[in-house]
Amino acid sequence: MMDALTIFAGTANPDMARSIARALGVRLGACQVERFPDGETSVKLDEPVRGREVFIVQPTAPPVNDHLVELLAFADACRRASAASITAIVPYFGYARADKRDGQRVPVAASMVATLLQTVGIAHVVTVDVHTPQLEGFFRVPVDSLTAVPVLADAVRERLSEGTVVVAPDAGRVRMATVFARRLKTPVVVLHKQRESGTKTKVLHLVGDVRDRACLIIDDMISTGGTMAKSIEALLEAGARPEITIAATHGLLLDDARAQLAHASVRAVFVTDTVPVLQEDWPQLRVVSVAPLIAAAIRQFMTDGSLRALG
Amino acid sequence: MMDALTIFAGTANPDMARSIARALGVRLGACQVERFPDGETSVKLDEPVRGREVFIVQPTAPPVNDHLVELLAFADACRRASAASITAIVPYFGYARADKRDGQRVPVAASMVATLLQTVGIAHVVTVDVHTPQLEGFFRVPVDSLTAVPVLADAVRERLSEGTVVVAPDAGRVRMATVFARRLKTPVVVLHKQRESGTKTKVLHLVGDVRDRACLIIDDMISTGGTMAKSIEALLEAGARPEITIAATHGLLLDDARAQLAHASVRAVFVTDTVPVLQEDWPQLRVVSVAPLIAAAIRQFMTDGSLRALG
Amino acid sequence: MMDALTIFAGTANPDMARSIARALGVRLGACQVERFPDGETSVKLDEPVRGREVFIVQPTAPPVNDHLVELLAFADACRRASAASITAIVPYFGYARADKRDGQRVPVAASMVATLLQTVGIAHVVTVDVHTPQLEGFFRVPVDSLTAVPVLADAVRERLSEGTVVVAPDAGRVRMATVFARRLKTPVVVLHKQRESGTKTKVLHLVGDVRDRACLIIDDMISTGGTMAKSIEALLEAGARPEITIAATHGLLLDDARAQLAHASVRAVFVTDTVPVLQEDWPQLRVVSVAPLIAAAIRQFMTDGSLRALG
Amino acid sequence: MMDALTIFAGTANPDMARSIARALGVRLGACQVERFPDGETSVKLDEPVRGREVFIVQPTAPPVNDHLVELLAFADACRRASAASITAIVPYFGYARADKRDGQRVPVAASMVATLLQTVGIAHVVTVDVHTPQLEGFFRVPVDSLTAVPVLADAVRERLSEGTVVVAPDAGRVRMATVFARRLKTPVVVLHKQRESGTKTKVLHLVGDVRDRACLIIDDMISTGGTMAKSIEALLEAGARPEITIAATHGLLLDDARAQLAHASVRAVFVTDTVPVLQEDWPQLRVVSVAPLIAAAIRQFMTDGSLRALG
Amino acid sequence: MMDALTIFAGTANPDMARSIARALGVRLGACQVERFPDGETSVKLDEPVRGREVFIVQPTAPPVNDHLVELLAFADACRRASAASITAIVPYFGYARADKRDGQRVPVAASMVATLLQTVGIAHVVTVDVHTPQLEGFFRVPVDSLTAVPVLADAVRERLSEGTVVVAPDAGRVRMATVFARRLKTPVVVLHKQRESGTKTKVLHLVGDVRDRACLIIDDMISTGGTMAKSIEALLEAGARPEITIAATHGLLLDDARAQLAHASVRAVFVTDTVPVLQEDWPQLRVVSVAPLIAAAIRQFMTDGSLRALG
Amino acid sequence: MMDALTIFAGTANPDMARSIARALGVRLGACQVERFPDGETSVKLDEPVRGREVFIVQPTAPPVNDHLVELLAFADACRRASAASITAIVPYFGYARADKRDGQRVPVAASMVATLLQTVGIAHVVTVDVHTPQLEGFFRVPVDSLTAVPVLADAVRERLSEGTVVVAPDAGRVRMATVFARRLKTPVVVLHKQRESGTKTKVLHLVGDVRDRACLIIDDMISTGGTMAKSIEALLEAGARPEITIAATHGLLLDDARAQLAHASVRAVFVTDTVPVLQEDWPQLRVVSVAPLIAAAIRQFMTDGSLRALG
Repeated sequence: MMDALTIFAGTANPDMARSIARALGVRLGACQVERFPDGETSVKLDEPVRGREVFIVQPTAPPVNDHLVELLAFADACRRASAASITAIVPYFGYARADKRDGQRVPVAASMVATLLQTVGIAHVVTVDVHTPQLEGFFRVPVDSLTAVPVLADAVRERLSEGTVVVAPDAGRVRMATVFARRLKTPVVVLHKQRESGTKTKVLHLVGDVRDRACLIIDDMISTGGTMAKSIEALLEAGARPEITIAATHGLLLDDARAQLAHASVRAVFVTDTVPVLQEDWPQLRVVSVAPLIAAAIRQFMTDGSLRALG
Repeated sequence: MMDALTIFAGTANPDMARSIARALGVRLGACQVERFPDGETSVKLDEPVRGREVFIVQPTAPPVNDHLVELLAFADACRRASAASITAIVPYFGYARADKRDGQRVPVAASMVATLLQTVGIAHVVTVDVHTPQLEGFFRVPVDSLTAVPVLADAVRERLSEGTVVVAPDAGRVRMATVFARRLKTPVVVLHKQRESGTKTKVLHLVGDVRDRACLIIDDMISTGGTMAKSIEALLEAGARPEITIAATHGLLLDDARAQLAHASVRAVFVTDTVPVLQEDWPQLRVVSVAPLIAAAIRQFMTDGSLRALG
Repeated sequence: MMDALTIFAGTANPDMARSIARALGVRLGACQVERFPDGETSVKLDEPVRGREVFIVQPTAPPVNDHLVELLAFADACRRASAASITAIVPYFGYARADKRDGQRVPVAASMVATLLQTVGIAHVVTVDVHTPQLEGFFRVPVDSLTAVPVLADAVRERLSEGTVVVAPDAGRVRMATVFARRLKTPVVVLHKQRESGTKTKVLHLVGDVRDRACLIIDDMISTGGTMAKSIEALLEAGARPEITIAATHGLLLDDARAQLAHASVRAVFVTDTVPVLQEDWPQLRVVSVAPLIAAAIRQFMTDGSLRALG
Repeated sequence: MMDALTIFAGTANPDMARSIARALGVRLGACQVERFPDGETSVKLDEPVRGREVFIVQPTAPPVNDHLVELLAFADACRRASAASITAIVPYFGYARADKRDGQRVPVAASMVATLLQTVGIAHVVTVDVHTPQLEGFFRVPVDSLTAVPVLADAVRERLSEGTVVVAPDAGRVRMATVFARRLKTPVVVLHKQRESGTKTKVLHLVGDVRDRACLIIDDMISTGGTMAKSIEALLEAGARPEITIAATHGLLLDDARAQLAHASVRAVFVTDTVPVLQEDWPQLRVVSVAPLIAAAIRQFMTDGSLRALG
Repeated sequence: MMDALTIFAGTANPDMARSIARALGVRLGACQVERFPDGETSVKLDEPVRGREVFIVQPTAPPVNDHLVELLAFADACRRASAASITAIVPYFGYARADKRDGQRVPVAASMVATLLQTVGIAHVVTVDVHTPQLEGFFRVPVDSLTAVPVLADAVRERLSEGTVVVAPDAGRVRMATVFARRLKTPVVVLHKQRESGTKTKVLHLVGDVRDRACLIIDDMISTGGTMAKSIEALLEAGARPEITIAATHGLLLDDARAQLAHASVRAVFVTDTVPVLQEDWPQLRVVSVAPLIAAAIRQFMTDGSLRALG
Repeated sequence: MMDALTIFAGTANPDMARSIARALGVRLGACQVERFPDGETSVKLDEPVRGREVFIVQPTAPPVNDHLVELLAFADACRRASAASITAIVPYFGYARADKRDGQRVPVAASMVATLLQTVGIAHVVTVDVHTPQLEGFFRVPVDSLTAVPVLADAVRERLSEGTVVVAPDAGRVRMATVFARRLKTPVVVLHKQRESGTKTKVLHLVGDVRDRACLIIDDMISTGGTMAKSIEALLEAGARPEITIAATHGLLLDDARAQLAHASVRAVFVTDTVPVLQEDWPQLRVVSVAPLIAAAIRQFMTDGSLRALG
């Protein structure tokens, strides 16, 4: 079975592609990706893909447009070279937050990206902890949404002190927080952003009790760290113990994210490797890999199995 | 301008179609809809639509499948009869809540319906207070999402006592509640469904203070009234004054909805006419019409104007 | 081979699905179909279909719109769950008679339904004795049109007295009647509906001789039985022996069909199980099963065989 | 209005295109069609079509493949040159009889041609007396099916003697015969092809009485004349007066059609100019033009009118 | 592997289809192609193709429109008969030179044909020495472009005298000439068509030296032979030895091509069998077969191998 | 007419958009384009486009992927906001050179980009001096290819000394050179890249005579300037006068292009403003604007005129 598949690594996260291949006991497909002086992306497959089930590992992490076009180009090359099927492994799905218009004249970029991916012949998409569950409906082709919560929960478990609560930083993450809580057997509290009527300031309300408790703030991603910083502040104000752990699937860590999270109360920051993370000299940062999770999913794909067992 | 448009009334809400036509000063397009003994729907247009901008008024209210197929058949008839464009006015969008898979092997029915509508040639969709803002992304064609909040807010305003709070029955309605609150200059409180870790029971947490206050519970729809009944209970337990007003856009009022809402504290129930509502001998029920809103939108469509002014 | 297929039973004819599965020696795929208070249909597959060849058994029998939307929802669920292929087994194809416009502003519903089925990912359709052979051209995907004539002919054979003639109730059924006649080695007569010039009444002309002969009236379906009743009358008027047998593939038997066919001269009414038939206390009614025929076809599909041998 | 339209004449029937243009008071669009030594068709538009409603007059008469590909090429040129809309005027629709598979492994060529026409951007099709009314369902775009019966009936009227009957040469033409009969206030008789059980010979049964009557045999087309010759024979055998008139929309008159119809009893053969007809020294042949009919239809298209008045 | 494939021979080059089948050790699929008196093409497959990988061998050689429509009809028949995949083997691709508009209102016929082929379900195209390499981009599906240069080069090799140069008859063939030259270890010279400013005459410039050398003029096709005749003239004028060999992939040899090439200096004309060539009494003409090349490619397709080894 | 159009300026060349708008006497559409910290592009239209003909001015110049995705997002926003039509003005078309596969497993990026543009609803594309004329065939929608040659020729005319020759730097530019030559009434010479058999070095052959003549080297674009530098060298070696003028449509001028062109013999370098060009302190560089050309084209689009007059 495994000899019918070829895994290509885009340039957005070659380390993860390598880890997946290693876990599956296959080698990566030979290919070359170049960027020309004018910024044009060139992709060349150095081995046949005729009749093969191709998996392209490419999170659309920053620089998102380059990585997106590269993914499209990869698929175009595979389709024209007669691949039997093309699956895009997009552990981090850029533009996922642009999922509605809210009465404005804007694109629905997440829907547009879904259409672009399908247009070039991608017939199956795999993501991890995608921001909006409606994303699947933007696609006509199957989308398998994996979750990093089990591996993150396992990683944080031993570091949590008795009585820690799981904190959802806003209403949209309650579902994710609940999965953490069930695994860790802890209660959930929710920070609730609310605009006071007549003012522009958003206030964070806390649903649940954090007094004298250690907190595990969870989220799907840490972008610039701003939301996280405000959550920490709100928890401490509400009497939480200054013993805060952070767990988020996608560690984009843009701009001064590190500074934002460099709060004395933060004991550890857990992210996964859906996007490449530079760890050097930030002792609090821990990166856990979702490569085994994705490898297990691919194994199920190749044997027509169920993903239920994975999470 | 108005002489280039034809409005057809499907059987799901002919009263509203008539009201829209009246507001626009046009008469409804002549057509016949029949249902055969075997349940097959037959549509026949009794006037030419060649080159005309056709609007079909058809909420996909219960019986949703019959109304959906009738809408599709209407569009097929218009397309084959050379209509210049086909807009579906779907004030209530059935299946909108079926917008994700959540890891199960289910359809994304809202996305599927969006595809079906487009397949038959519907090139523009107009809805009112659709359950999920991501619905627009399920479509490729323009979707104009109107809101009944202004007309509902105007209707409830004079009946509200001083100090009433607007209640969002769950996190998904906070946005809608905030729009009400801004119009009514009241605070918002949020009922927050939460599953205790390890139990199957969902508990309603209240974010905000309702003690000794009258409440306006808002929602996009009242289906069987179950959620609403639980919200009332939770508010009263939290010390709210037994003076509750309810405002929801879509008054499906299925099964024993009326019994569920026949609580002594309920002063009035406001719904709109997106779906036909039987009002007889339920003195608390008030129906406000969104036909003027939709008529105004159609007027903007015909003059290439903006919908901003409408809400 | 058979272990790569999954057969799901929609709610339109679960008995037939069970018979097919039994004939193939497989069990039905586990799934749940629910109808919500608002009439929305919900489908849930309880076993993986990844990489499997899925067959959904669902005639679009009355209530046709509900059964049609359920079939579409089934296909959407299977496609999103990565089924390798989706075949719709639609033994009775609703809306098949709505196959032309005849100069009116109506839909071509049969063509529209064909498009809807393909839109959700159905890649192969199997029907039985479809009303109009042009239906295949409404599809882009393969349509395999089976015929129940051989099994019906085998069932009626021993009950026919010497010299019985096969009667086509109108010109559209001559082809079907001819197949019966060839199997039963009997002559064919044709009832020919004709509108007298200048009048609205249709008169039935008879092509061929029925004097003192027993008749086997055949048709693709018995809907309300009206056409059949008129045929009986015309045959008796033409001197046929009052010994009439009826054979039709689809026994919809709507409204007062049974009363219509309760003529003293009617000896037996044969229909198949393409739609569920209630047999209780109607001694003349005989139901023969096409499940073995469909099972044999599926076996050919799974082994890339020809359907020629089946009929 | 008329100044927004451009009519191009393909090479299949330039005379008719000229007649249509003359009737509309416009000149034909300038264009060049060439056939290269290798048989490749080249089309060149010699005037701008940007923003214009283009009508291409091209029956797919023999040589059907050349005329079909030329029509496709015309449409491709118009679409790329930014025509506002492209309507194909296909008075004779080749391949229309290839409308089903009848259990064989053959194409449904009529459906395939419908798809090809739409693929190149043809958004509206106009035909005359198409062989199969289901053809419209093979298209997604509007098809306007005109009928030459009124102009043919007007032409034959004065030549018919008292008591003439209209003859449908097979069951498929009963509808057409009925329209003739209504216009001419005559009865209809039907020739009914039937295969005797067990034999290969088809026998023509006659429904209705022709004894001592003159006959008007109608049909949609005269191809090689074989069917017509057999009908004449059957009528005479049934005692018809040897005074036969023939009226058919499409006068393909292939091979030895003229010899087939050179029966002493044939008084006149009426066809239209949907395909070019050579009339020279065949005194019985009369060609009536449908160009005014098509011109009237185009006028309705340009003014968004109804086609009802035309027939 | 080979038992899953079926090769059908269209009427454009049945000899080649037979050669391919023989080389693969399979027999041709049974089928019938007819042309009716009205020029309509009929295709009938006489054996099942369900689940089979079908290859249709059909160059779109003159008469190109007939062969093109036949190919489309073949594909329609195969798709409706449930073929697993349909590959068109189009050794000579008609209309390939119609690949751009150059500011005129013409079709891009090559692009249009590509769209037509895909529309009917052709999912893979194989060509030989296609005129324009951009053709692949007109397709969405994989196109495998084979080259006859190796087999032609092998065939001419022994007939070339020492010091022969390879001549590209225009700039567009330099790439092809270079491949010849590399195989034959000879230099390349280029004839360069150029319009003198202000005149309509094109002059042939020669890049490279041919004095006292034998020449091998190569081209992708010989149509009417005009270009070739002018090249010969130009070479002789430039002092070439009157010892000219011609090698071209597609020997259309239209009109008076043979007369054009009957120059005393022409020693041999090599073409392949991509289109049928009549060889009789033209001693200079040599036909080499590309059937082994195509058979080898099909073998790679069936074993998911690479085509690199073929050329 | 002009009041039905809205021109939006993407961020790739806002100066040109402004010039076009000024030439047409309209103001640019109000909109906001932002790039988030994670590189995601956000587009917001600040005025209604309902029913308007929208033109988006956006060359896909470096950084090509960002500008491409921005263009797609613009179109998505316009389509969802009910624009009547969307035209992309892409004066420089990135990826145009990636127009073939040449036997390698690469994408055909130009074709892919064409597909992406159409997928989001772009219904008309305008380009200037596109690299490959086959590009139009990659599109289904109309592509209007303008040329800057007339404005460049007018600009260079007075600077050319008597007897200057126009130089095509390779065979692909002969057509462009010829247009220059016709306008300037000069001869053309062609540099001809050729690989010596057996070596990797390409040699530049010169077709035509440049001895003691001034040269005007033309090209569609100057990327890094490498090709241009080699052409200069070859011309001087061939005895050209050290008086060289360069004219190219697209002045990408990447990397050290300026250094490459800083040859003593280079008198002037003319480029247009299809991409933004920094002119500061490079006295040889002259930028001529194609904005008037594009404005004139848009005027023709709005009045359904011909583009023939423009060039």
